[in-house]
Amino acid sequence: MAGTDRTRGEPGALGADAPIVILVRPQLGENIGTAARAMLNCALTKLRIVEPREDWPNEKARAAASGADIVIDGAVVFETVDQAVADLHWVAATTARPRGMIKPVFTPLAAANELRLRALDGQKLGILFGAERSGLDNEEIARADVIITAPLNPAFSSLNLAQAVLLVGHQWFAATDATAPVELPMGKTVPAEHGDIDRMMAMLEDGLAAGGFFASPDMRPVMMRNLRALIHRAAPTDQDVRTLFGVIKALRKAGPAR
Amino acid sequence: MAGTDRTRGEPGALGADAPIVILVRPQLGENIGTAARAMLNCALTKLRIVEPREDWPNEKARAAASGADIVIDGAVVFETVDQAVADLHWVAATTARPRGMIKPVFTPLAAANELRLRALDGQKLGILFGAERSGLDNEEIARADVIITAPLNPAFSSLNLAQAVLLVGHQWFAATDATAPVELPMGKTVPAEHGDIDRMMAMLEDGLAAGGFFASPDMRPVMMRNLRALIHRAAPTDQDVRTLFGVIKALRKAGPAR
Repeated sequence: MAGTDRTRGEPGALGADAPIVILVRPQLGENIGTAARAMLNCALTKLRIVEPREDWPNEKARAAASGADIVIDGAVVFETVDQAVADLHWVAATTARPRGMIKPVFTPLAAANELRLRALDGQKLGILFGAERSGLDNEEIARADVIITAPLNPAFSSLNLAQAVLLVGHQWFAATDATAPVELPMGKTVPAEHGDIDRMMAMLEDGLAAGGFFASPDMRPVMMRNLRALIHRAAPTDQDVRTLFGVIKALRKAGPAR
Repeated sequence: MAGTDRTRGEPGALGADAPIVILVRPQLGENIGTAARAMLNCALTKLRIVEPREDWPNEKARAAASGADIVIDGAVVFETVDQAVADLHWVAATTARPRGMIKPVFTPLAAANELRLRALDGQKLGILFGAERSGLDNEEIARADVIITAPLNPAFSSLNLAQAVLLVGHQWFAATDATAPVELPMGKTVPAEHGDIDRMMAMLEDGLAAGGFFASPDMRPVMMRNLRALIHRAAPTDQDVRTLFGVIKALRKAGPAR
């Protein structure tokens, strides 16, 4: 999925109220960078970093962010999780494993819906991501309002930091995005009018009859109905139907293959 | 989201009919490895590789797969996309940009639902992912039945290979997974019985009255109702209510702070 169209605008809707991503004790600058890239993929721009192991600002982070400079430049470093969430109204903690804590566990999708409702209410929101290997500790999770755990292969559920950010961030983006589940882009053409399809089918039927396609007259309506179903499944455009007229004509003109 | 519980079983349901991931002209072994890891996170194990730039088998791919050896070991190399999809019934091509082709464009979620229905029907399914920078070319996309494009920040939509695989794969996994949107794990405890909450609230009210908490008798029922709403929002366990009895008792015993 390469390709970024920089001429298209930022998706606006909830940008100002989008959740803050809080990386807790990230070990490598590079991982902060790839997480920043995943954030910007999902229109998340506000990054807080608690106790990074490497110095900040960090050039490896900037390089790994692949152009997500807006996230890197705006990142703020905190000494503790408590300080990083002090001004937030609602905080979710991401974990891979159950932690034996009586706290609601949301899927990324359910969390995105909750985040969206709270963002519309003007609340300041945060999502905590733990260190690459160890994750968040229980004291840190206890400070969150809810837990987010992505449903993943239980026998192989370990994600790197950027992937965890992407899974949660993408649901946030999708929850605030109006993309239809399925779209059929028509470009400059339009679907064929049914009358044109009918004329094309009649021309086809003539040719098939002339070529001895119908073994028995009984089968003729059934076979034509099946061919018509095929054509309608293909949802032909105006241009497609003109092309098919030409195809039928050319095949008749070609005569039998020797 | 660190942590893999290797004692938990493979998620069974649709494993045998899960889609085949087809990487087209991947440039770096490392990227094949991280894609394999993302596949196994989503219980996808069948990998095909078309025209990899580096030799295969590839040790950098294995290292980057972080233990997803089952995917690496089972990978099959093909010379062309045509050969790689020849035995498949339904193929989706992932793209980041619109391609001006009249072909249905699915979100990863919608594609996952379609894949699931077709898997239940026993069809062999494939998902094409293009090279890191260039993506799939139009000839290759023309061979797919549908396009999958993840809704992402249009001003910054470029994903690396593993991230693209994860976004699509995670929706597949979630579509075949029974995780509730929100769960409240109770461990060995149970929610408090309402009668115990009532007794605790009565004890609290006694203490508050004795301590002069209610400025006017009129306010007493309102304040108690608000406190009760707070307690119910917290969904206390049996143990929580016993703890709260102790808290009230201890505060009364402590006497005024000097």
